[in-house]
Amino acid sequence: MSLRSTLDFLLYDWLDAASLSQRERFSDHSRETFDAVLDTCERIAREKYAPANRIVDTQEPHFDGEKVILPQATHDAHKAFVESGMLSAAQDYDIGGMQLPYTLQAAANSFFAMASVSIGSGMLTSGNANLLMVHGTGTQKEVFAKNEFSGRWAGTMCLSEPQAGSSLSDVATRAVPDGADYQDDPLGPRYRLTGNKMWISSGDHELTENIVHIVLAKIPDANGKLVPGTRGISLFIVPKRMVNTEGELTGERNDVALAGLNHKLGWRGTTNTLLNFGEGKYPVDGKAGAVGYLVGAPGKGLHCMFHMMNEARIGVGTAAAMLGMAGYYASLDYAKSRPQGRAVQKADAGGGVVKDSASPQVRIIEHADVRRMLLAQKAYCEGALALELYCARLVDVQKTGNAEEADDARLLLEVLTPIAKSWPSEWCLEANSLAIQIHGGYGYTRDFPVEQYWRDNRLNMIHEGTHGIQAADLLGRKVLMENGRGLKLLAGRITDTITRAAQVPELAPHARALGEALQRVGSATQAAWSTGDPQAALANAVPYMQAFGHTVLAWIWLDVAARALALDGAKSNPSTAGRTGAAAYFFHYELPKIGAWLNVVESRDATCTELSEEAF
Amino acid sequence: MSLRSTLDFLLYDWLDAASLSQRERFSDHSRETFDAVLDTCERIAREKYAPANRIVDTQEPHFDGEKVILPQATHDAHKAFVESGMLSAAQDYDIGGMQLPYTLQAAANSFFAMASVSIGSGMLTSGNANLLMVHGTGTQKEVFAKNEFSGRWAGTMCLSEPQAGSSLSDVATRAVPDGADYQDDPLGPRYRLTGNKMWISSGDHELTENIVHIVLAKIPDANGKLVPGTRGISLFIVPKRMVNTEGELTGERNDVALAGLNHKLGWRGTTNTLLNFGEGKYPVDGKAGAVGYLVGAPGKGLHCMFHMMNEARIGVGTAAAMLGMAGYYASLDYAKSRPQGRAVQKADAGGGVVKDSASPQVRIIEHADVRRMLLAQKAYCEGALALELYCARLVDVQKTGNAEEADDARLLLEVLTPIAKSWPSEWCLEANSLAIQIHGGYGYTRDFPVEQYWRDNRLNMIHEGTHGIQAADLLGRKVLMENGRGLKLLAGRITDTITRAAQVPELAPHARALGEALQRVGSATQAAWSTGDPQAALANAVPYMQAFGHTVLAWIWLDVAARALALDGAKSNPSTAGRTGAAAYFFHYELPKIGAWLNVVESRDATCTELSEEAF
Repeated sequence: MSLRSTLDFLLYDWLDAASLSQRERFSDHSRETFDAVLDTCERIAREKYAPANRIVDTQEPHFDGEKVILPQATHDAHKAFVESGMLSAAQDYDIGGMQLPYTLQAAANSFFAMASVSIGSGMLTSGNANLLMVHGTGTQKEVFAKNEFSGRWAGTMCLSEPQAGSSLSDVATRAVPDGADYQDDPLGPRYRLTGNKMWISSGDHELTENIVHIVLAKIPDANGKLVPGTRGISLFIVPKRMVNTEGELTGERNDVALAGLNHKLGWRGTTNTLLNFGEGKYPVDGKAGAVGYLVGAPGKGLHCMFHMMNEARIGVGTAAAMLGMAGYYASLDYAKSRPQGRAVQKADAGGGVVKDSASPQVRIIEHADVRRMLLAQKAYCEGALALELYCARLVDVQKTGNAEEADDARLLLEVLTPIAKSWPSEWCLEANSLAIQIHGGYGYTRDFPVEQYWRDNRLNMIHEGTHGIQAADLLGRKVLMENGRGLKLLAGRITDTITRAAQVPELAPHARALGEALQRVGSATQAAWSTGDPQAALANAVPYMQAFGHTVLAWIWLDVAARALALDGAKSNPSTAGRTGAAAYFFHYELPKIGAWLNVVESRDATCTELSEEAF
Repeated sequence: MSLRSTLDFLLYDWLDAASLSQRERFSDHSRETFDAVLDTCERIAREKYAPANRIVDTQEPHFDGEKVILPQATHDAHKAFVESGMLSAAQDYDIGGMQLPYTLQAAANSFFAMASVSIGSGMLTSGNANLLMVHGTGTQKEVFAKNEFSGRWAGTMCLSEPQAGSSLSDVATRAVPDGADYQDDPLGPRYRLTGNKMWISSGDHELTENIVHIVLAKIPDANGKLVPGTRGISLFIVPKRMVNTEGELTGERNDVALAGLNHKLGWRGTTNTLLNFGEGKYPVDGKAGAVGYLVGAPGKGLHCMFHMMNEARIGVGTAAAMLGMAGYYASLDYAKSRPQGRAVQKADAGGGVVKDSASPQVRIIEHADVRRMLLAQKAYCEGALALELYCARLVDVQKTGNAEEADDARLLLEVLTPIAKSWPSEWCLEANSLAIQIHGGYGYTRDFPVEQYWRDNRLNMIHEGTHGIQAADLLGRKVLMENGRGLKLLAGRITDTITRAAQVPELAPHARALGEALQRVGSATQAAWSTGDPQAALANAVPYMQAFGHTVLAWIWLDVAARALALDGAKSNPSTAGRTGAAAYFFHYELPKIGAWLNVVESRDATCTELSEEAF
């Protein structure tokens, strides 16, 4: 199946995306306009992204002392992406957007992620500008957000610091008021920032005339001290080059200096940087300190950020899914064309296996183990894509549904987002490893694309909140919040699917298995928290998340298979057999894995925590 | 624990390696001489290999049109290795060897594998020369094997071909008698070879003055046709440069041409080549065709090769284990020194988790999930190393034990070798991924070593027989051969351990769990073959091998833990707690995974084989 036909099924047949056009915000849209967006993105990805994928891997970003140099192919791809209007696709018409549902935006972006994931840095610019549209002043929107949506400027998110990593409460970048009149700047209360920010994607480049950094920093109290914890964090706009209220460059550099490029295992099309703010390399008005304009209220920085967290994490999950899909298609092509070996024919007298070596070799897709590796990839990657689109649909409901629908969607997203982020990053990486394996020795060479997919995909378990952080968020917060209402909502949706699938003979055994898995996840959640001690509960948060994720994916597959059979019970279309086959694979080979993961959750196994440090 | 202290425990306390010196062949040895070998290898690995590991990754082998260029560091490391005498360590005194047990050789080699796995290409040279010592003529041993053992020349194994890959029955390289007097060459019956060999490690370089290729080829029958299948395969010595019976270079090149270097994901310290034999680039005596000298009888080539298969596969398993160990040590150091975040302290009113952000950050080894990832690595890698040394010990028993012992060792090795090769290549790769994860973003950069370990280790599931081939060998041949006697022998050893461990209160629950796992593997083996149809039996050979491997490793850990507690029941040494902790981890977190794998084996699940090709 091509990606497009898979997307068409998931969007229109499964998620009924066409009906989104009945909502007022999307009322000018129809399946035709949606398809036109998909067509455009598919074409740009094919023409500008896919051919550049190996180029951006081998021509890593480098700094010539003044500028960060990227390959010409990246400039061309970026230009085509900007011209497509996708940066502001979800925005209002009156600021030049298309009022496209997020579901469609997510689907359209999947083409770029599959063709060359590390070029596709539009997500940060959109996310940055979206945040300003919600929390910025009118002038901030006009000057910064609009110039990002138009592609004239790019955006970053500057959160991590070298000494703090994922621990945002330890952010040490300081922001002090810039002069007595700091409140009066038309671009927002003006501060001077000093500090170092690590892991900043697209932190420096020449793709655009300016870069709009959004920076987390703390405003010292009256004694000059930073407030511990995340409550003290505020948000600032720090442009690379100073601008005026007309959105024109003033010609002055802001005091933001590139301190280093990170040289990575993969994902090399995106520059990743260490930035020094306010070290005095580029003084503004003769003074050291990076000029930053406050966004929202002081101390509310993380609150503003959370607004965009769900979409960013769905973006990471989609990237992981599409890297997996790229490997799946590559290995499927290879398996269909590569002749090697023969089918097993019979057992010999001693019980050994005999093959007829005089017959011609068969294509490797005829070998059982190759098929197993292909079907595993299909189940992982198409399942992951379905989950991401399901979550994207919830984002649209949250934004445009009635109060009750919207609130349910919000809460479901709280629970599902850690899975949408973590599950594809783990299992579509495994899919990439299987794609290498199918290629044999060729898969280990750089003459085939699969080794790069595997390297690129390894990032996704790390950025935007590591696996461990997602797991602590799921078991330590999301399944507990609002007295477990999110978990109950999800269980309700899963039960609906089970009830429907139980009526279909082919799916009834899966429905039973899913019902048992759901019960076991529920009781494991209770067992984990039964002592009320977070140390004990969270000691096995990752195995819990793995089991939770496999249960969610089993549900997604059961729902997809039920829909496919409802539309084509005779399986006259091979895609129906493909979907029910992938669902069967998931239920037979994958879902039973949850037992091992939940064992240690239920028993609050303390083997790892109790071992003394000297014993490692 | 350092690698040396782990090796000391496994060799002397667990495997009683010192007692090998009671055997006649090793009677000049003692723990002192063994330790001296370990000391020397540890020092060379530290001084010459470890510092070169990143260099060989970044300075990939390249061909300047005449020569293959390797970094100077590789030449230095190779020279130090040769001077250590390890190439012929296991050989007889009278040809300059040390008559060292293979157990010690394997342990000593682990230092090189951990320090820089891809420099350590001595294994091929030793293996090549060992084969000649068994199957070669006196002159072949004198001229070729001895010059390899001395390090003057290097060796290769030329099996794969581009069109055949793992399918050796499709070898198409032809060997035809070279003239009427071809039988009379003092170096062996002289043939001319033509064909292409792919994936040849160390196929061309300037580390040594000559390279001795051992090549699989077929001698055409009277009609000029190649016999289909593996029965037609013969073995030839094909030197890169022609030599005389004195072992001197004649000054003439043989007709072996470098057709290309493979550019790999990792393992870049080893040149990997496509070689063209007999294309006429370097005619010998004015004639195209690479000159090759027959080894052993015509048509018995694979038989001769199998002789060295076990040791080669133990070598691959050891390399995988040691790459895992390198990542374990790197991430353990990092976790002990990197401060980040704080311990979870209590649940808040809403059931959420609270941390005291005013307290100083803790080192990440204090986080439960980091400990889980460390203990998993320890369990995977130390367990894998123990298995490899156990197998190496069997090699020594096979070579020097009495007839019954030797035969049992041979058969146990048949069954265990697919696990010794495959299990570390899968799970110590997973260990490397966990080592990256512990490093967070830093682990994804090339400033830290763990990403290279992960790339290097990905090769091990591919070379020396892929995962799929090992699995088919295990379930399709090894557990069936001699009416299942190998499996019964193994079950007997496992049962011995269970009986002993059942007496130790701390280990009794593990002993019960292992007993159940062993029973289930046995019944799954029967269920897989219950229809007698190899297609059905082998459809899930890889999940079978995964379950079999986890059961073997659980046994190894139980045996190691029982021995540790027998020596130090009070756990006064932290290493004892480390060993029993790793065993507990394996029994609680890993062994329960076998259920999911065996489900599909027992039911002969046909989901993957039955799906039509169009449905993928």
